[in-house]
Amino acid sequence: MPELRKDPIIDRWVIISTERSKRPSDLLVEKTRSRGGFCPLCPGNEDKTPNEVFAVRTGNTPPDTPGWKLRVVPNKFPALVTTGDLNKRTEGIYDRMNGFGTHEVIIETPDHNATATTMTVDDFKNIMIAWRQRILAYRHDSRFRYISIFKNYGEVAGATLEHPHSQLIALPVVPKRAVEEIDGAQVYHGHKGRCVFCDVIDQEITDTRRIAAENSRFLAFEPYASRFPFETCVIPKVHTASFEDADEAMIDALADIMSTILKKINSALGSPPYNCMLHSSPFNTDVGAFYHWHIEITPRLTRVAGFEWGTGFYINPTPPEQAAQYLREAPIG
Amino acid sequence: MPELRKDPIIDRWVIISTERSKRPSDLLVEKTRSRGGFCPLCPGNEDKTPNEVFAVRTGNTPPDTPGWKLRVVPNKFPALVTTGDLNKRTEGIYDRMNGFGTHEVIIETPDHNATATTMTVDDFKNIMIAWRQRILAYRHDSRFRYISIFKNYGEVAGATLEHPHSQLIALPVVPKRAVEEIDGAQVYHGHKGRCVFCDVIDQEITDTRRIAAENSRFLAFEPYASRFPFETCVIPKVHTASFEDADEAMIDALADIMSTILKKINSALGSPPYNCMLHSSPFNTDVGAFYHWHIEITPRLTRVAGFEWGTGFYINPTPPEQAAQYLREAPIG
Repeated sequence: MPELRKDPIIDRWVIISTERSKRPSDLLVEKTRSRGGFCPLCPGNEDKTPNEVFAVRTGNTPPDTPGWKLRVVPNKFPALVTTGDLNKRTEGIYDRMNGFGTHEVIIETPDHNATATTMTVDDFKNIMIAWRQRILAYRHDSRFRYISIFKNYGEVAGATLEHPHSQLIALPVVPKRAVEEIDGAQVYHGHKGRCVFCDVIDQEITDTRRIAAENSRFLAFEPYASRFPFETCVIPKVHTASFEDADEAMIDALADIMSTILKKINSALGSPPYNCMLHSSPFNTDVGAFYHWHIEITPRLTRVAGFEWGTGFYINPTPPEQAAQYLREAPIG
Repeated sequence: MPELRKDPIIDRWVIISTERSKRPSDLLVEKTRSRGGFCPLCPGNEDKTPNEVFAVRTGNTPPDTPGWKLRVVPNKFPALVTTGDLNKRTEGIYDRMNGFGTHEVIIETPDHNATATTMTVDDFKNIMIAWRQRILAYRHDSRFRYISIFKNYGEVAGATLEHPHSQLIALPVVPKRAVEEIDGAQVYHGHKGRCVFCDVIDQEITDTRRIAAENSRFLAFEPYASRFPFETCVIPKVHTASFEDADEAMIDALADIMSTILKKINSALGSPPYNCMLHSSPFNTDVGAFYHWHIEITPRLTRVAGFEWGTGFYINPTPPEQAAQYLREAPIG
C-alpha cells in the first residue's frame, strides 16, 4: 500500500509508492507509452481498463462497450488506493498515514488523435460535465478533503499515455498549494473584506493588457506574476468557491472559453506540451466568502531548474502582457 | 530592466525579463548550447566572459587569462541587474520592484568534459571555497537579503551550457521556499526548544535506513518525505545556520562528502541530470537558533506533472529507504 508522508519542516505531503517501487534502471526509461502501438483507452479496448464509473454515451449502448463520447474509469495503476483506512501514525518525529484515496482517468474522447484544436465545444462540455459529476460523487464522503483534477498533454508535461485524458485524484488531506491559496485569500479578505480573486478580475478587466480571451461569464488572462511564459488563468467572473456548483449555463460558457484558449495556445505556440489544473475549494471547509475557483493552464516551454527548485522564485522570459497579446491575436482554427 | 513581481494571493515573487523577452518562436528552441561547439567558459576564452571576480589560480597567472583551476564571473545574460535601486511600488493591487540583484557563474574546472565522477576532492574543495567567498562578498551589503547558489547538470535539469558550472543569484527579498523552511523550523523550535534539522539528523543516525553516505562532520541522507527518487540532503551534523561560517575543516569534510555522494549518484543512476541547491540562512535575520544550512541534490528522473504543479503534492515511485540502500552500495569510482 502506498504511504503518505509529511515533511517535518515544510507542511508538504508526498505519496511514496511502496509496492510498484522503481529500481534505478526502471527510472531511466520512463517514456510516453503506446506511441503508435496498442492504446488501452481506445474504443474496443474497454476490457483493458477497470469498469467505467461514468460515461457520456450515444444511444443505449451498455457500459464498458464502444459507443461512448467520454468515459471515466479508475486508474489501473493508481497513486492511491481506496481500501483500508488512514491509520495516521508517527515514526519518530515524522508523520505518516496510509496512501488512501482514489485515482480516476477521464477519457475525454474516443478519438486517439484528437487535440484541443480538433475537439468541438461539445467535446469540452462533456469533459466539464464529467469533472463536475465526479467531484459531486465524492463531495459528501467524509474520508476525502480535496479533489485534484488535472491534465498532462505531451511527454514533456508528464503524459504517459497519448490518448486525450485528464485525471482525478481524491485526497484525504488538503494539499499545500490549496492551503497557500486559501490562507492568502483569507488574509486579504480579513484586511479588505473582499475576495482577492474578484479584485484581480476587476483590475484585469480595467487594465485589459493581460486578457487573452473572454466571454460573458469567464475571463482567460495571463497572471501579473506569471511563473511561466503563456501561463493562463481561466476564472468565472462571478464569485464562486466551488467548481462543482456550476450550473448548465456556466458549464456551457466554460466549455466555450476552454476550447477557445486551448486552441489559441496551440496555434500561437505550435501545440506545446501543457498542464491544466483545476483549483477548487476543499470539502467541508468554510471558504465560500473568500475563495474563488479557477483553472490554471501552463504550457511547458521553459525548464524548471535549480534556482526555481531551490527558492520557489521563477524566472519568466515572456512578460504576461506580451503573451496575452500573442494569444489575443492567435486564431482559434 | 527586469522586474520583480509578487503574486497577490501566494507570497511568491517572480522575475519577469522585460528586455530580452522571448517570442513564442524563441521559446521552442531552448537547448543546451555549445554541444561540441564553441564554449565561452573554456580556458583561452576568458575574453568572452565579463571580468572574473574570483579565481583559484596556479602560479602567478594574471586575472582573465588561462592558468585558473576555478573562475567566478558575472553572468553575461543575468536574470537580475546590479544597477539602479529597488524602486518598490504598486500597480493597482499588485506589488513590484526593479529586478535588482546579481547573477554570477562559478566555472568549476577548466576541463570542459569533467563530471562529478572525474573531479577530485580538491576540485570540490575549490568549489566550496568559491561559494563561501562569494557569499562573504555580499553578506554585508544591505541591499541583499538572500543568496541562492545552485547547479544544473544536464539539459533535462535546465543546464544551457555544458561546461561544469554552478550559479549564484543574490536577491533583494527572501524567497518563498526559504521563508517556508524558516517558518517551519521556527514553529518547531517554539514548541520543542530544539532545531528540527538536528532532530532529523539524530533520528536518521539512529534509524540508519535512509543514510546514503557519512563522514565525521556531514550526513548525506534520503529525506523521509522525499519528493523525488534519490533526492538527497547533505547536512552538517553540528548545528550551523549559515554555510559561509564553515571553517577549513568543514570545507574539507564537505568537499569529501559532496564528491562521494555525487560519484555514487552517477554510478547508481548512470550520470543522471540533477539539480543541486544550497539552502543557507538569509542575511540580517536572527534565525541562528533554529535554522540549519544544508544542500539539496535532486536527480531529475521523473517528470513533474499537473498533479504536482496543481497541489504541491509529489508522487515518489522510489522509497527513500530503497534509494539509500542503492547509494550505500554504489561504488564511488
